[in-house]
Amino acid sequence: MNSAYIQSERTRLRRRPQRGTYDRETVHAILDAALVCHIGFVADGRPLVIPTAYARIGETIVFHGASRSRTLLAAAAGAELCLTVTLLDGLVLARSAFHHSVNYRSVVAFGRATLITDSDEKMAALRAFVERIHPGRWAVARPPTAEELKATAVLELPLDEVSAKVRSGGPIDDEEDYALPLWAGVIPVAITTGGPIVDERVASNLKPPRSSLFMK
Amino acid sequence: MNSAYIQSERTRLRRRPQRGTYDRETVHAILDAALVCHIGFVADGRPLVIPTAYARIGETIVFHGASRSRTLLAAAAGAELCLTVTLLDGLVLARSAFHHSVNYRSVVAFGRATLITDSDEKMAALRAFVERIHPGRWAVARPPTAEELKATAVLELPLDEVSAKVRSGGPIDDEEDYALPLWAGVIPVAITTGGPIVDERVASNLKPPRSSLFMK
Repeated sequence: MNSAYIQSERTRLRRRPQRGTYDRETVHAILDAALVCHIGFVADGRPLVIPTAYARIGETIVFHGASRSRTLLAAAAGAELCLTVTLLDGLVLARSAFHHSVNYRSVVAFGRATLITDSDEKMAALRAFVERIHPGRWAVARPPTAEELKATAVLELPLDEVSAKVRSGGPIDDEEDYALPLWAGVIPVAITTGGPIVDERVASNLKPPRSSLFMK
Repeated sequence: MNSAYIQSERTRLRRRPQRGTYDRETVHAILDAALVCHIGFVADGRPLVIPTAYARIGETIVFHGASRSRTLLAAAAGAELCLTVTLLDGLVLARSAFHHSVNYRSVVAFGRATLITDSDEKMAALRAFVERIHPGRWAVARPPTAEELKATAVLELPLDEVSAKVRSGGPIDDEEDYALPLWAGVIPVAITTGGPIVDERVASNLKPPRSSLFMK
């Protein structure tokens, strides 16, 4: 497999192309570090952007929802989608107001999703969601029943028309501003997990799973 | 002013309406806690979703970009937009794989944005961006020049057709699953800031601003 996605008219980076990449490894790393994506589609000629959980399985993104949801139905009907994932990495404090910025990693994927009908594939997708929420959880959780599988629509979007954009590093000020007596730099931002909050109906002898950062 | 946004056909919550709200205070709190929004619009009949920084000023969202950017130009031309903001709050570990979920707060706003042409209003918007990145920074940073103001397109989207959706609390399992000997609960997720990373050209006597959580 080629190590980079093919560049299309839609994924060609117009603004600041130096921040863009079509490298598969970079795209995968961003997709695997986030948990929520934003799916955009056109409904009655107007844009609709819905946040949803997702997982990557190889070269596809799987996402799911109740079988009757508006987004899922539109997606299942073959509507064009734009799936965007963004991770905020830092606040960039420049000397000038104008050059203040944020560090981020984002992926934009275009395409049409298809409904997963094969029950083994559907099970594999549900497994990927649960493992994304907490690695190792699938092995211990009560598995989905046939009814639960039926009530869940799972869609897959192939990763074909994809690009990533990354801003990292410090502020880039105008040369004359470097002399200003003002601190400048980056305040890193990260998504972190806190201590587990036990459900009130859990028996007191049961221990929480080891809480770990799920973000890479 | 009414304490709630008017419900429209587009903002009426179809899926799990009990998680939805039109309450202004809730909407404002979510918008003020995040830093990145996803703006969706229709380009050549197809959806495009772009992440961007934003700030709320009263009942408008302001966002900006280079005057020549594709998103900004489309928005400036009066295209219908859907602006979505999502905060991930927790990983919900249920006893059944099926009931695993995430806690989140999201806002979806529909409308048309307009280009801010008044220079005082434009300056106020830039101030809001910088203050959002770091409170107090506007007072110390070198202010924008006339050229910088000109190179930046700033748009405002009025908050009219808006809804919020919130999932909080623990897992909701099927009654028979509560007897399973499995820990269940929530692993909180938060966006946190790390220690400041100084730019290499900052004089050693200059102190970083007090790093604080910018998220509420």
